[in-house]
Amino acid sequence: MAAPERPPESEDCAVPDLETMTLAEKAGQLVGAFVGSMGDVELSVDDAAALVRDENVGSIAAFGIGVSRYHDPERVAEIANRLQRVAVEETSHGIPLLLPVDAVHGHAYVDGATVFPHGLGIAATRNPAIARRAGEITAAEMRATGATLNYGPTCDVVRDPRWGRTFETYGESPLLCGAFAGATVRGLESEDRGPRVAATAKHFPAYGDPAGGEDAAAVDRSASTIHQLFVPPFVEAIDAGASVVMPCYNSIDGEPAHGSRRYLTDLLRERLGFEGAVASDWGGIDHLHEDHRVTASQRDSARTTIDAGLDLISIGRDEYAAHVRDLVESGELSEAAIDAAVSRILDLKASLDLFDDPYVDVETVRTTVGSSAHRTAALRAARESQTLLENDGVLPLSAGLDSILVAGPNAASLRNQYGGWSVQEPDPASGTTVLDGIMDRAGDQTTVRYERGATLRERRDLETVADAAADADVAVVAVGEGWYYHEFGPNGLVGPTGEFPTRSQLALPSAQRDLLEAVYETGTPLVVVAIAGRPLSLSWCAENAAALLYSYYPGSEGGKAIADVLFGDYNPSGRLPVSVPRSVADVPTTFNHFAHPTPIGADEHPDTYDPLYEFGHGESYTEFACSDLSVAEPRIGPAESVTASITVENVGDRAGDRAVDFFLRDEVSSRVRPVCEHVGFARVALDPGESTTAEVTIPNDALAVTDSRGRTTVEPGTFELSCEGRSTTVTVEPGTERR
Amino acid sequence: MAAPERPPESEDCAVPDLETMTLAEKAGQLVGAFVGSMGDVELSVDDAAALVRDENVGSIAAFGIGVSRYHDPERVAEIANRLQRVAVEETSHGIPLLLPVDAVHGHAYVDGATVFPHGLGIAATRNPAIARRAGEITAAEMRATGATLNYGPTCDVVRDPRWGRTFETYGESPLLCGAFAGATVRGLESEDRGPRVAATAKHFPAYGDPAGGEDAAAVDRSASTIHQLFVPPFVEAIDAGASVVMPCYNSIDGEPAHGSRRYLTDLLRERLGFEGAVASDWGGIDHLHEDHRVTASQRDSARTTIDAGLDLISIGRDEYAAHVRDLVESGELSEAAIDAAVSRILDLKASLDLFDDPYVDVETVRTTVGSSAHRTAALRAARESQTLLENDGVLPLSAGLDSILVAGPNAASLRNQYGGWSVQEPDPASGTTVLDGIMDRAGDQTTVRYERGATLRERRDLETVADAAADADVAVVAVGEGWYYHEFGPNGLVGPTGEFPTRSQLALPSAQRDLLEAVYETGTPLVVVAIAGRPLSLSWCAENAAALLYSYYPGSEGGKAIADVLFGDYNPSGRLPVSVPRSVADVPTTFNHFAHPTPIGADEHPDTYDPLYEFGHGESYTEFACSDLSVAEPRIGPAESVTASITVENVGDRAGDRAVDFFLRDEVSSRVRPVCEHVGFARVALDPGESTTAEVTIPNDALAVTDSRGRTTVEPGTFELSCEGRSTTVTVEPGTERR
Repeated sequence: MAAPERPPESEDCAVPDLETMTLAEKAGQLVGAFVGSMGDVELSVDDAAALVRDENVGSIAAFGIGVSRYHDPERVAEIANRLQRVAVEETSHGIPLLLPVDAVHGHAYVDGATVFPHGLGIAATRNPAIARRAGEITAAEMRATGATLNYGPTCDVVRDPRWGRTFETYGESPLLCGAFAGATVRGLESEDRGPRVAATAKHFPAYGDPAGGEDAAAVDRSASTIHQLFVPPFVEAIDAGASVVMPCYNSIDGEPAHGSRRYLTDLLRERLGFEGAVASDWGGIDHLHEDHRVTASQRDSARTTIDAGLDLISIGRDEYAAHVRDLVESGELSEAAIDAAVSRILDLKASLDLFDDPYVDVETVRTTVGSSAHRTAALRAARESQTLLENDGVLPLSAGLDSILVAGPNAASLRNQYGGWSVQEPDPASGTTVLDGIMDRAGDQTTVRYERGATLRERRDLETVADAAADADVAVVAVGEGWYYHEFGPNGLVGPTGEFPTRSQLALPSAQRDLLEAVYETGTPLVVVAIAGRPLSLSWCAENAAALLYSYYPGSEGGKAIADVLFGDYNPSGRLPVSVPRSVADVPTTFNHFAHPTPIGADEHPDTYDPLYEFGHGESYTEFACSDLSVAEPRIGPAESVTASITVENVGDRAGDRAVDFFLRDEVSSRVRPVCEHVGFARVALDPGESTTAEVTIPNDALAVTDSRGRTTVEPGTFELSCEGRSTTVTVEPGTERR
Repeated sequence: MAAPERPPESEDCAVPDLETMTLAEKAGQLVGAFVGSMGDVELSVDDAAALVRDENVGSIAAFGIGVSRYHDPERVAEIANRLQRVAVEETSHGIPLLLPVDAVHGHAYVDGATVFPHGLGIAATRNPAIARRAGEITAAEMRATGATLNYGPTCDVVRDPRWGRTFETYGESPLLCGAFAGATVRGLESEDRGPRVAATAKHFPAYGDPAGGEDAAAVDRSASTIHQLFVPPFVEAIDAGASVVMPCYNSIDGEPAHGSRRYLTDLLRERLGFEGAVASDWGGIDHLHEDHRVTASQRDSARTTIDAGLDLISIGRDEYAAHVRDLVESGELSEAAIDAAVSRILDLKASLDLFDDPYVDVETVRTTVGSSAHRTAALRAARESQTLLENDGVLPLSAGLDSILVAGPNAASLRNQYGGWSVQEPDPASGTTVLDGIMDRAGDQTTVRYERGATLRERRDLETVADAAADADVAVVAVGEGWYYHEFGPNGLVGPTGEFPTRSQLALPSAQRDLLEAVYETGTPLVVVAIAGRPLSLSWCAENAAALLYSYYPGSEGGKAIADVLFGDYNPSGRLPVSVPRSVADVPTTFNHFAHPTPIGADEHPDTYDPLYEFGHGESYTEFACSDLSVAEPRIGPAESVTASITVENVGDRAGDRAVDFFLRDEVSSRVRPVCEHVGFARVALDPGESTTAEVTIPNDALAVTDSRGRTTVEPGTFELSCEGRSTTVTVEPGTERR
């Protein structure tokens, strides 16, 4: 066979014809490697370069990840260029590399990057434009450093707040998760404001309800729940153009997603029509043998996952490259299967224009990463996320206070304010803490005193704090959680495993409670700011604090955003994207639980849904009145959507934004449905006395009942639509449609 | 058509030919009624008699149930006779009635009946002969009063100890649930020692894992979990001859069991081959419309349930009889479907010999109910159930103690010792409390003082208790839960809904904790007896009590059984059939959880299974040494069972019984399996110095992996078998078999 001709004008940067690639070259494209240390494996940039050169490894996570020690923006851009140069100049086809990063809330493993609020905070804004803009900025900062694939957004619907990844999610409503994941994908993948990156819809099909809240434990839920609750956000993310899908670590119905043809091919490719690449989560393939025990060896895991529909073994290195070669040579994997996977990887690289130019301009990195325009967008996101749970009138703080005490473990910790998936030692200049924000805003007339009072889990000198509180006009105490990811360790990140925060503790630890009580006892109004990744059960605060502001992990501009809210420069508008349980003993507490009977009478059951704060709760400094909930057409056909609207009026005396949530209940259906489904949301901005109509389109899909195979049917009958305490009905006329 | 000929010699008591029955007569056989008050409905015996006479109602729950006010054994037997007489003499075919009862742990809604320990205690014995004998005795006491159908045993595997029906179950191991449900069925259905009753395997297919532990909430588990974890005990109960199966109230995968053809026909009848009758749980049919909202009306519920495979609408009364008639007349239900159901009901009645003689001899009721022989069996059951969780040597109590303080809310309460599904005001003469037992046994030399100290949820005079404790040689404090069923109300049973016991509280309430601490502070050795339906998180007791004896709900003879253990007349041998979680925050805590990865390292996860007390924990007054775990054949074929044995030696100085549990782990399988499966148990009795071999046969089924459709396959490969800290392997040779 004659050697195929390559286009001469771009010899080193054309997408190669598969027929010209050796098996080893193909196998190399299907594996990735990393820089850093994980378990027993430690890889330097040189090691990574050697893997590219010698093993044709096609993807290197060299920075922008937790295990890498490189954080300086220029340094990481140089590493990107160096690795690309090896790939382009020292491999036979010159195929450029994918450089994936964990830019979960901005390119936050790079010093000085713009750090957005984590998922829960973003969802509290009820403003997908915020997510889209965050995606665009994240893409811009990634591309500036040479990173091209983002391991995000998270499409997981959280159901158990003990889970250590709750903060990454957009909450317990599939609608919010889909809307915000979709908007994030659009931002990451958009070329409107600069080069795009590849977004990863993760973790397919369901990660958000691991048994006991333990990270990566089995999601042992029924097939219809998988389809109706967990899969819909992935549909949104895929529709929005996500280039990559990542399976979850968990097993579902006995099948680990990484090795499941049912989920990765039958569901993802065939039913959902996904045509992009499927990339493994980091240890996801090793786990099949080591933990799930469904394969006899790592080689067997390679075969099983590729058979199932996986394309990229993200950190497979030379080890898995060898397995892939061997499996094809032995006939256990067809070369056609490998070719299909390689094609998807090459298409992905081509779509990112890497064959045209894989290099970045190191000179301009610093003007992009953490730019002032980006920070302004992050500030806006952080502001809109702030969720006011309690306020006896102490907020906004009066003008001309003589003195403010600022206290608590999260008042002056940029690290805790970032939360996980971020550099652990942020430069103080790269963001604003709560203390910074308050000091900047307080002005010369006001004395701001800071006493930490407690670390996350240890008391400090409470007498001093109490004395300071007694002397102050108001005390702002920032409590909550710190930096963690996945679970609540390891040692050195948040503290020894088993100390707060822990999976099983949703209340504040005694050190923080003692601090709050010491301040409270002085009689000085106590404003609690909760910076935390999970919906903590703050019953004491609910009862005793003068105000309680939930700030989630607000990111680099969080301190200013919080100060803006405290001083009334910004009127808070965030609404909870999760329910806050009264205690961990009441988990799960979700608004959209299944309807069910109470055999000995409803009075003898404590309420099924009786949270400390309901999904959607969030107060304002002004008052809104909602009226005239209506639907455009009270009777619709089985394939039609619903247009619903409600009048929102600002009846208070301050301008403010108001988000409204719409819920649906199917009066009778062929299968049991949740008592309440979140089907729409809208956000309006109103001056005092102003009124407007908030309108939502509830897609036809939202009316459908989902069966065990994922088939959806809109059944005729009546639905109750509710919003802000109002309700109306819409009736679907007979003539069902099955899809 | 000529009228069919009836055998002239038994005109009033022959099984009628269906063709001679009117639709109304058939419909009547498919519905039941009750005596008592439920919701808005109040029915007297006269009302019930009228329903039999006028509506052909074929089943009356007149006593032996919570809602009936009739408890006197002779009175209930008279009612039984009266109702049968109406059925036999005043209806055209003279079809006798079914008289169902909730004889969950003995015929315990009848005064003076023998009350056995509830399910958890029975399973702690690891002695199915106990369950079988309890079934026989329950059947004898039921039949003595005219009751013929028992709504039990419970086949549900409990997974969330918050659930208010935990105490009825045989624990968290499907093996125990199947073995003890099966043995109970054999006892109930056996004619070896008298007439049998019909046993009901309930609640099919899965009730034991309702969301959040809330009674009857959705069991939202994967199909393979339903098949491998929840269904197997039903297979055992059906194999053992259960005449009736009752669906669960819950929905599973969107389908309420009562209206699910998939569960009641495809699974129960077709896959499992069940040929008996399917009887609704009480509100189970009403719930379809009222709560699950899957039917448009009660009439629609009648159609849906009968279509699904249900035979008996247990409390359908004239209302549902009318629906059934109407559905057949309108052609919405075929008469053939009704005929099949009626046949099963008539067959059931015939199998109970009711057509021969439906009456009981009222004169002899009192000699049967609560007879001394029966009580001896109940005492044996209660003794073997006692599970010693802690003992620093204080037990058994020394001979010749001067004084014992007996305290606590459960020391002198027969009602709390019975637990739910029992008369609420037991005659003090009908059982032995802990205080009775200790006083009876202590002898003249020992002063026994009783100070309650606390009710279940309120402190009493702790100073007096502390003084008494200080004066005593030892203090026995009986704490725990009281009488409840389903959930933790209603008001008047245990206290207002929301007060201990509650679903979300697994720790003792402060009143009981204060009592324990007050006693503990005196320095007098503190022996805690826990009488409770759930595995309470007794961390304080674990750390501080000199001894902790778990007594479950031990039934009428419980006080004597406990005294026998405390004084060493009986060497405790019970072993936990459930894990005791450290706290409710750690739920679920089950030994047989799924294998799963720990993505950032096992060290950073608190242990997945780290209970306060492990499944199987239980101490003795002697020491046992186990050795030589072995299998008869280390390599077996794919259809073979495993014979395993272990040597158990009594190396202490007291005679005692020892139960041993065998566990299996599949090293590699095609689907994710639990990290540990309970596959066998045995119980041996050994004198000091004596040694024996405990042998179990592990059925081939126990090796199988179960898929989403319930198909089981024994896969070749190696299994690790463990018992008492020993382990060995067994290998299945290639040649798989699919069933």
